[in-house]
Amino acid sequence: MKDATLKQIADQLGVSITTVSKALKDYPDVSPKTKKKIVDLANKLNYTPNSFAVNLRTKQSKTVGLIVPTVDYNFFSKVFEGVLAEAEKRKYLVIILRSNEKLDIEKKQIELLLNKRVDGILMSLSNETGDFDHIKNIITNKTPLVLFDKIAKLVNCSKVAINDKKAAYDAVTYLIKKGHKKIAHFRGSFMPQNSIDRFLGYKKALEDNNIIYDSSLVYICDNNTDFEDGYENAQKAVAEHPDLDAIFAITDLVAIGIIKYLNDIKIKMPEQIAVFGFCNSFMSEIITPKLTTIDQPGYEIGKKAASILFDEIELKKTDNPIQFQSIELATSIIERGSA
Amino acid sequence: MKDATLKQIADQLGVSITTVSKALKDYPDVSPKTKKKIVDLANKLNYTPNSFAVNLRTKQSKTVGLIVPTVDYNFFSKVFEGVLAEAEKRKYLVIILRSNEKLDIEKKQIELLLNKRVDGILMSLSNETGDFDHIKNIITNKTPLVLFDKIAKLVNCSKVAINDKKAAYDAVTYLIKKGHKKIAHFRGSFMPQNSIDRFLGYKKALEDNNIIYDSSLVYICDNNTDFEDGYENAQKAVAEHPDLDAIFAITDLVAIGIIKYLNDIKIKMPEQIAVFGFCNSFMSEIITPKLTTIDQPGYEIGKKAASILFDEIELKKTDNPIQFQSIELATSIIERGSA
Repeated sequence: MKDATLKQIADQLGVSITTVSKALKDYPDVSPKTKKKIVDLANKLNYTPNSFAVNLRTKQSKTVGLIVPTVDYNFFSKVFEGVLAEAEKRKYLVIILRSNEKLDIEKKQIELLLNKRVDGILMSLSNETGDFDHIKNIITNKTPLVLFDKIAKLVNCSKVAINDKKAAYDAVTYLIKKGHKKIAHFRGSFMPQNSIDRFLGYKKALEDNNIIYDSSLVYICDNNTDFEDGYENAQKAVAEHPDLDAIFAITDLVAIGIIKYLNDIKIKMPEQIAVFGFCNSFMSEIITPKLTTIDQPGYEIGKKAASILFDEIELKKTDNPIQFQSIELATSIIERGSA
Repeated sequence: MKDATLKQIADQLGVSITTVSKALKDYPDVSPKTKKKIVDLANKLNYTPNSFAVNLRTKQSKTVGLIVPTVDYNFFSKVFEGVLAEAEKRKYLVIILRSNEKLDIEKKQIELLLNKRVDGILMSLSNETGDFDHIKNIITNKTPLVLFDKIAKLVNCSKVAINDKKAAYDAVTYLIKKGHKKIAHFRGSFMPQNSIDRFLGYKKALEDNNIIYDSSLVYICDNNTDFEDGYENAQKAVAEHPDLDAIFAITDLVAIGIIKYLNDIKIKMPEQIAVFGFCNSFMSEIITPKLTTIDQPGYEIGKKAASILFDEIELKKTDNPIQFQSIELATSIIERGSA
């Protein structure tokens, strides 16, 4: 069956297409009687307003793209909830894509979203993303873009993130104040800015407290959304540094892997080794001991990033200039049992 | 800046619009030299093929809608990963919406997706969804629909789910075989089919093993994606039934709430009270004791539901009749420490 069109409805009722269109939009200048006839027939024929055609005219799809590097049970789920909450409020639809931490997939997804003519794009970069031409392409295309969490300082657009360096600095300073001296850092891979910044915060806290930085205490968890990586590196760290007294992990998931290993070999936390996470995920409360961690406001990050994006989309329509914002959301230490 | 159009490109190069269109689609009947000129200019002008216009012609948006009742850190994240994996493979985009377990939101979201002319809809029903006219509307609209997890037996479309009754029956039979006699069930609310079916499986297992069903042992966790609900009901159950020796929970999250409470009051699991979950979420492995649970294959459910939907969308194009499928994915018991 072909879909019913305005013309079909107009023809069957002997009225003009304009009248049908006005009636279906509930304009006041169509009589209630005619309106009812038109609406009834439209319902009978299963008429659906053609939103793609509407888009051609208004140039708005009321749809935005969200590219996340990974779908986890953790930080990105919270971001996602924040984005959806704001999208529901502002009546936007969200197409979600995940780059799987791959640059080539990220590039393809941007192309796909631009071809789809979404009104705007929200994204957190993959761990592989070291050049930004494909990101700049979004801006050249005049499509509003907001980066969040894993951002690129070199791209000129609005950004929402936390101060990763400061948060890491606070975490490590906390461990030092508790008397820990041999503090390992389980970092992420070398590319993403947040992995670099958390490492720099760790290093600076050591330096400011006259603890000599020892690169052999830094372990790389490439897959920092996998607790196995924390588990395996904890095994190595404990073997290589018998006097280790604390570990600052790049994510809660890595920290949970560490806790699992230390529990397995009956090392007491925090007495023998303190463990400090990053995220304040749901899991940090249910593990034993409960995880001391940095509260990273994922929901707020998602909500704020979406809110800025929708504002920029609205502003673009009015041809008013857009002033990019760089929002830094506050983090805090959540004290629990592990540190 | 106005977007570049095929006409602009044609005018600037003195070729026909058809030639431009063919060149950009890489048709063989345009000479490589002309093709290169056209592609170069299109790139220079930032030409984007107008996918909404393409949609008007092909009647395909290569976009589907996914409505989930809730975004959790658990089952729906897994479903979501499965849907995305299949969508990536088949080159579909996924608009995701959450109904927040509300019927009125679910209705609006269906309308929104139909107006958007998505090619198909995947959905898991809200806990409030007791009549199905809005769901049937999708079918009347000739939009392919696949229901998963929280399905409606009365709607005539493809469905992917597990056998909730059998899985619950297996879980409770397992507890009985381990010698438990006073087994509570922490069930979900009254509406969704999976909540009803898990309850029926619990009841049948008792009956088949000559244990008299006692309704005072059934507790309702309305918000079964919240561990607080499990925690609070565990408090009640332990106070009301001092001889309680096992609890079968509707979800892992509820089970985790129970474990938290039993840990708090130093009740040994499984020696004093055994706890059995449902989902096999990531958390079930990190809690102490580790949770014995039903493995509910969320990833496979999402992947299968998406795969069927894309098949139906393709079939619809060919005007071939669509045979609805009802897929029941197998579940299994994952034995761990809590039961």
